Amino acid sequence: MRRIVFYVSDGTGITAATIGHSVLTQFDVREFDSMRLPFVDSPEKARAAAARIRHEGEQRKLRPIVVNTVVDPELTRLLADCGALMLDVFAPFIAPLEQELGVKRQSRVGHAHGMINFADYETRINATNYTLTHDDGVDLNYADADLILVGVSRSGKTPTCLYLALHFGVKAANYPLTPDDLDRQELPKTLVAHRQKLFALTIDPQRLQQVRESRKPGSQYATLAQCQKEVAAAEKLIRREHLPMLSTTHTSIEEIGSKVMQTLGIDRQLF
Amino acid sequence: MRRIVFYVSDGTGITAATIGHSVLTQFDVREFDSMRLPFVDSPEKARAAAARIRHEGEQRKLRPIVVNTVVDPELTRLLADCGALMLDVFAPFIAPLEQELGVKRQSRVGHAHGMINFADYETRINATNYTLTHDDGVDLNYADADLILVGVSRSGKTPTCLYLALHFGVKAANYPLTPDDLDRQELPKTLVAHRQKLFALTIDPQRLQQVRESRKPGSQYATLAQCQKEVAAAEKLIRREHLPMLSTTHTSIEEIGSKVMQTLGIDRQLF
Repeated sequence: MRRIVFYVSDGTGITAATIGHSVLTQFDVREFDSMRLPFVDSPEKARAAAARIRHEGEQRKLRPIVVNTVVDPELTRLLADCGALMLDVFAPFIAPLEQELGVKRQSRVGHAHGMINFADYETRINATNYTLTHDDGVDLNYADADLILVGVSRSGKTPTCLYLALHFGVKAANYPLTPDDLDRQELPKTLVAHRQKLFALTIDPQRLQQVRESRKPGSQYATLAQCQKEVAAAEKLIRREHLPMLSTTHTSIEEIGSKVMQTLGIDRQLF
Repeated sequence: MRRIVFYVSDGTGITAATIGHSVLTQFDVREFDSMRLPFVDSPEKARAAAARIRHEGEQRKLRPIVVNTVVDPELTRLLADCGALMLDVFAPFIAPLEQELGVKRQSRVGHAHGMINFADYETRINATNYTLTHDDGVDLNYADADLILVGVSRSGKTPTCLYLALHFGVKAANYPLTPDDLDRQELPKTLVAHRQKLFALTIDPQRLQQVRESRKPGSQYATLAQCQKEVAAAEKLIRREHLPMLSTTHTSIEEIGSKVMQTLGIDRQLF
């Protein structure tokens, strides 16, 4: 039996899971099971969560770890009655911030990912709609784009664009380099007009072959020879055009997104 | 001039921004500017970041706040030479975890949103592809769906599905209730066959009217009367079918996603 980590929150539990995962990767996260317990916002739910945690600890004969972002001290006290190692995410930062800011913290339940601001919401939704309608070269009018990712098919453009739109409200378009573009070794005019918005993604041909094979098994498109040929031609074109380029082979969506924004000088708040 | 908060990281800075934003919402985050400084992974970059932070503090005549997830103690020491209030996100949790786990933490730079596990990556990408091809009733074969969101057009189905796919690898489909469905007060057969996967989103008609108006200004579709009529008919149908239902009017994408998964009993790790 593996040790279990609970991410307990009065809201979604995203903050607790994010910090908990980050700190545990510094040990060895593969040795843990994990579970989110979101919306723990009443004494009843706190007692139920504590019972659940205690039960898992007894079953596993290994003390659970609780990463806790519940703000209400009374609920945290009820939770603590579970025998786990309690890590309170906010506690260490409240006193230094109260001293620096000269104000007391207010206990707002589940505020971080609860919603609230229509303007922010609309920014995210409009960017997501933009990305969906400017995906894969469907609409080539890039006047409103914040950025345009270019690369061969399945190099990671679409998920990166959706991530940037959803979480940063960035209008991210993408354009798949066509065989015709690669043969001519020229970017289409519609892209050249927005050169300062372009960022190129590339990928290791072996990896590309795997991705395409799982998408279209047995196709010409998924052969290693085809992948090698397209990637070589794309990288040649990208270098010739002096576009910023990143390999997605060993890079997470979040990391690609951050590097693209940093390179193009786009500074947006994370939603 | 407002006080500035820096989210400084050797990786993407997402963990720093998430925790920093969460803790500052407990004070009053609207009084702050913020900036992420990602990929601070060398002494040169740490010195440059410190200079940048110091400069902002002098300009604003207000001490900056630094929320820091840089793991390397030497880089953190260089960063601390910036005059800001330093909040080290990981520091408070290392000692208790080392004691509980009986192992020392290893300083892995930018691990949390960096490293990629091909299997995890493929889960996210496959789910995202699934969601894109099962968006808005385009493909009605729901055999592989983990869940299906139903609701009137613009009730928040698509962004929620994309969020669940990208961050939890959930194959989230969505089906827009058509005028025909609403008139008949019946769900299409293709949905009824997957009743246990269904979750309904609703929305305040006034809010829906705003969203539709910004999408298709002046259309019949965006009139308040049309929105009221559709929402009333949809809620009647949803209640008649006993589907779980949530209003998206005051709810963030993250919160909708968490509640849908919790209600349907889908437990997935956050990527």
